[in-house]
Amino acid sequence: MHEFELINRLKPLLPANDFVVHGAGDDCAVLDLGDPTAHTLFKTDAVVEGVHFTPDADPEQVGHKAIARCLSDIAAMGGRATAAVVTLALPPGRDAAWSEGVYRGLCRTAALHQVAIVGGETTTNPGQALISVALLGRVARNQAILRSGARVGDAILVSGELGGSIAGRHLNFEPRCDQGGWLATTGLVHALIDLSDGLAGDLRHLLAASGGLGAEIHSTALPISRIARLRAREGDLAKPALLAALTDGEDFELLFTVAASDAVRIMDGWRERFPTTRISCIGRVTPGPNVQLRDKTGIRQMPPAGYEHFRGES
Amino acid sequence: MHEFELINRLKPLLPANDFVVHGAGDDCAVLDLGDPTAHTLFKTDAVVEGVHFTPDADPEQVGHKAIARCLSDIAAMGGRATAAVVTLALPPGRDAAWSEGVYRGLCRTAALHQVAIVGGETTTNPGQALISVALLGRVARNQAILRSGARVGDAILVSGELGGSIAGRHLNFEPRCDQGGWLATTGLVHALIDLSDGLAGDLRHLLAASGGLGAEIHSTALPISRIARLRAREGDLAKPALLAALTDGEDFELLFTVAASDAVRIMDGWRERFPTTRISCIGRVTPGPNVQLRDKTGIRQMPPAGYEHFRGES
Repeated sequence: MHEFELINRLKPLLPANDFVVHGAGDDCAVLDLGDPTAHTLFKTDAVVEGVHFTPDADPEQVGHKAIARCLSDIAAMGGRATAAVVTLALPPGRDAAWSEGVYRGLCRTAALHQVAIVGGETTTNPGQALISVALLGRVARNQAILRSGARVGDAILVSGELGGSIAGRHLNFEPRCDQGGWLATTGLVHALIDLSDGLAGDLRHLLAASGGLGAEIHSTALPISRIARLRAREGDLAKPALLAALTDGEDFELLFTVAASDAVRIMDGWRERFPTTRISCIGRVTPGPNVQLRDKTGIRQMPPAGYEHFRGES
Repeated sequence: MHEFELINRLKPLLPANDFVVHGAGDDCAVLDLGDPTAHTLFKTDAVVEGVHFTPDADPEQVGHKAIARCLSDIAAMGGRATAAVVTLALPPGRDAAWSEGVYRGLCRTAALHQVAIVGGETTTNPGQALISVALLGRVARNQAILRSGARVGDAILVSGELGGSIAGRHLNFEPRCDQGGWLATTGLVHALIDLSDGLAGDLRHLLAASGGLGAEIHSTALPISRIARLRAREGDLAKPALLAALTDGEDFELLFTVAASDAVRIMDGWRERFPTTRISCIGRVTPGPNVQLRDKTGIRQMPPAGYEHFRGES
């Protein structure tokens, strides 16, 4: 069963209480733990050897990836990460240097973002290593930006460049922590998500959460990464660069919507604060439910999410 | 490398910040997230198929165990659990009914203790299922009970009965949530830990955290479980019941110390509130570092923790 299907079937089972502001279903949960000025964000995520990294990957990069994925989720709510706990599940006999390398990566990235690591369990996982991180964050009360606030006519913006992350960037990407925190302070962002499954999939998640809206994306406005363009030239089995930008996973960029009338203001503010991180306006929200791709030749349906798996790519 | 060794080597690496009241090293971390009346507890723990449960275990009991282990850690700080997130890592092809069973167990136990489940990720873990739970709790400011507060002369108390958990109780034990919360309100408890590795090991953890103290335990006062006694009669390869009570893991009872002059008051208060949960005074804290076992024949050293592993038991 697909992850989203399972989560949707299980969601009605999940118990709630008075601490819950927003439960499962967004990038993070939002809790009210009694701080009169802030809400708490809560997220967990795991990376698995052979699935999210190869056995020969640099353990420091593995540690970085394990926590940076969660940092990206906190950023995707407009929050700031505060404290993490880690479970390292290791095959018997895995050498201590590997674990220490993972921890060095975890600690360096946590320290860079002023995040404390306050617990580190280890357990056994025969076959392959697994690193599970749970992360807390902080956001001003009622300023968390959900996936579900997009409105018809909104401009759709995306940070950075898309596609080809598998060539290496998935291990050393920079989570958009400062950018997410800044977006929340503007008060102008209607809906926000981070790109983990690829633009085609995550845009659909945002639109579905916003009541089943649609979108029109301009192909020529998509910020296709250099590596996706290079990989597209590798032969007749290579994935076209546009398709890679739309469907490759693990970009960990921010995708968000603002009123069309605020788009220029947001882009100007972004470029002033984050001059080295690209920001692109790639389309607009429509009444839906169609998600379409427009170029000079006309309008097409957006390719399905996860299309790359059917081509046997990773 | 042994878990405790690894954690001790890594602890100095872990970044901290102003949110941290007590970082890694106790049953939970203690955080100050801005609530003027309370601190936040934070814990993560994982159970792995073939390590913490067998493939034929009832999935609802597996879900119960996954969250109850964390609930026991919150209780062992004197706190109340508030919200959990869950990562379910599954081998490809694991049927949906199994995952739903695990979630039913997680949700039932969470609901019983008024805990919200606010996030549920799934990922792939080839070979065996792994369930990672991260749990938040709440404790009145500066009332969290650490492992490190034991004093020479303290009485040592333990809840419930010890030993033989592997026969089934490890899958359906009742975490001592109400008892832990009540202990914190008394203001009389000096040090508190939950028994996950067995009394001999966890008592040593508490004494080491309290500055290298020792203890004298009275064999005849130990609350040995009926199942440990039954298993001891199974033949000449069976583990003696006293050894089982001292070294079997996964009892998930509370072990704590109070001033000797408060011991009777605490035991009376406990029995009034929790008439079905046994409480035993099993010995006293000494200047140490020896941890000794006293019976009518004299004084012996406490057997080492994890002794059972050398006999090939699970």
